[in-house]
Amino acid sequence: MSMNAQAKRQFSAISNEMKPSAIRMLLKVANQPDIISFGGGLPNPESFPLDEIKRIFDEQLSKNGKKMLQYGATEGLDSLNVALSKRLREKEDIKSEPSNIIQTAGSQEALYMLGKIFANPGEYVITEAPTYVGTISALRASGVRMIGVEMDHYGMKMDALRDKLKKYPNPKFIYVIPNYQNPSGITMSLERRKELLEIANERGITVLEDDPYGALRFAGPHIPTLKSMDNDVVYLGTFSKVLSPGIRLGYVVGPHDVIERLNIAKQAVDLATSSVSEYIAEAYVSAGFMDKQIPKIIDLYRQKRDLMIESFENYFPKDVEFTRPNGGMFLWVTRKGADTDKMFEEAVKQKVLYVVGSAFYPDGDNHESMRLNFTFSSNENIVEGVKRLGRLFEKTAK
Amino acid sequence: MSMNAQAKRQFSAISNEMKPSAIRMLLKVANQPDIISFGGGLPNPESFPLDEIKRIFDEQLSKNGKKMLQYGATEGLDSLNVALSKRLREKEDIKSEPSNIIQTAGSQEALYMLGKIFANPGEYVITEAPTYVGTISALRASGVRMIGVEMDHYGMKMDALRDKLKKYPNPKFIYVIPNYQNPSGITMSLERRKELLEIANERGITVLEDDPYGALRFAGPHIPTLKSMDNDVVYLGTFSKVLSPGIRLGYVVGPHDVIERLNIAKQAVDLATSSVSEYIAEAYVSAGFMDKQIPKIIDLYRQKRDLMIESFENYFPKDVEFTRPNGGMFLWVTRKGADTDKMFEEAVKQKVLYVVGSAFYPDGDNHESMRLNFTFSSNENIVEGVKRLGRLFEKTAK
Repeated sequence: MSMNAQAKRQFSAISNEMKPSAIRMLLKVANQPDIISFGGGLPNPESFPLDEIKRIFDEQLSKNGKKMLQYGATEGLDSLNVALSKRLREKEDIKSEPSNIIQTAGSQEALYMLGKIFANPGEYVITEAPTYVGTISALRASGVRMIGVEMDHYGMKMDALRDKLKKYPNPKFIYVIPNYQNPSGITMSLERRKELLEIANERGITVLEDDPYGALRFAGPHIPTLKSMDNDVVYLGTFSKVLSPGIRLGYVVGPHDVIERLNIAKQAVDLATSSVSEYIAEAYVSAGFMDKQIPKIIDLYRQKRDLMIESFENYFPKDVEFTRPNGGMFLWVTRKGADTDKMFEEAVKQKVLYVVGSAFYPDGDNHESMRLNFTFSSNENIVEGVKRLGRLFEKTAK
Repeated sequence: MSMNAQAKRQFSAISNEMKPSAIRMLLKVANQPDIISFGGGLPNPESFPLDEIKRIFDEQLSKNGKKMLQYGATEGLDSLNVALSKRLREKEDIKSEPSNIIQTAGSQEALYMLGKIFANPGEYVITEAPTYVGTISALRASGVRMIGVEMDHYGMKMDALRDKLKKYPNPKFIYVIPNYQNPSGITMSLERRKELLEIANERGITVLEDDPYGALRFAGPHIPTLKSMDNDVVYLGTFSKVLSPGIRLGYVVGPHDVIERLNIAKQAVDLATSSVSEYIAEAYVSAGFMDKQIPKIIDLYRQKRDLMIESFENYFPKDVEFTRPNGGMFLWVTRKGADTDKMFEEAVKQKVLYVVGSAFYPDGDNHESMRLNFTFSSNENIVEGVKRLGRLFEKTAK
């Protein structure tokens, strides 16, 4: 018997095309000592409600332990879907039943499965440009092409969308992050939201609304979600930014035909989401802990956003532009003529990390920007990290 | 604005082909009162170490709370991979480094991703016939064809395998469950294991060894895993049967090229596994709780297996055949000439559930068998359920 012979493995075409995520790679460098990382999209650990989670876990385990540790339903824990349906109705005027909801392993799994159920390999969808890097990797993994539509400070530009639809008239869906967009920090205006729904409805195109940061509003008015204005919208929510990303819990609220397809796909992908996470989240929502925690997170993040913007004003050359997000976790920094990909190696040497702007474009064609996370670092590190970036901008030939 | 217009949705071809799992459907019926279900593959809740989990969770949250609730690495918690690598070396003589391991959302996600990275749609793999229904749905979701190879009481028949390889010479992998197979309960003999590796090595075919029940051995000698005999084998383990399926935690141990592909696929599918689950499992393994718990689970399940077999002998017609598994969770019941699909409707009326044998064949061509789970039901229900099935066999024309 010839043991330890390596099999002649040939992997699938789709696997050959998949690339490691820029951000996942970054997380490894970010663990080195003295590194200040504005790279990852990490919540601040101070925002985790440790005491409440301990209390909830112990209570749920005593009360529901045998169900909490058993296989759960693919659509998720019924009482959690009931609690979310109620909450979304009250907070966001979203009129959905518990049966319109499916729990997923974070929003990432939802994005992956939506790409898989909607598009055949080679078919296309429309996204903002830039868009969330995790969406790009999720859709690429099903061979889905992304057509990016330019943004301005009011969100996706509707004239640009109409133009793209002339060339690409049958997208499988339009994907947007209307609140405090990742990576740009931009909020889509109410007028744009209405116009987007109008365009989509006229043409019978499904709209995906990804709303991970909606609850984290520091400033500006509340703007209605697309889902509240059109119940055919497929809405993605998550506990990652308002409870914990480590529990890997997100959810999709959508029409029954979409939820049913997701359910069948999820049976194949991972059977069900962690019941432990679901029982924790259910008590977090139902017992009112979430409503107490969110204002604390907002206070923490608003102060960090302000500090980062103040540091930009103090330490960045005057020709560096940046967004001033009303919520969320990210700022978008742009310098005309810069090449943030080329700057990155020097940034690592200076021990400060960002995500290159090109990572957020499916076609990678913008090199003038970078995404900075303002939620994770200590106040001291925010000031010091921006100083380092400022020096880097100063000495980088444009 | 025309609101609430349903978009003209067309789903992907692969989504159109996906079918709901027979077992997931069953779980819904199983919740009705008075139903005795031998259907689901559920561990007995008495096997969950509730007190230990409470202690572990509280300790880990105090010590590592901020990491436990944060995003984790895609490959999984390093200390868990270290603990597993050590355990597998000691218990199974599997010589793998922590870097050969990736954590997954249960074995289901591992099966799904393995299908995705190995096979292009339409390409084929070899499995036992019958094989695990979750593997069938995972592989179908990537358009992978399954070629089933007949089994006898020593596992997959090697002459049948050689025959199939004449017609299907280039399978992307051979997938087997050597210990207490799901659904048949059969253990592959040492001779067959060696011959399987010999055939695979000769032809350069990768072998996938799924071992969810290996630790749950009630009788018979320990037989070495394929992985311990050939380190190029891709080995799947899980915490679902020895800790809790609700935490959704499994793992793959494999050569670096396979682990790296899985890592990149997982970045797209769900970023990372639940860190909460990983911290619980890490302490469960490292603090020795697992070694204390497994003998308790074995005692419980052995007794239930014995009771079910005794009940067969008391209440089944003499021409009903069944396997006598040395471990695991399932028994395979066969009656020549029966049609268990047709019997199912009457079984539901009699309030006893099983999984039809045809669900375990990719081509659905065996209707004489059924899978019975012996681990979940109370002793009383095991006897009563077998009585009901016995009456059903009696009155069913062959």
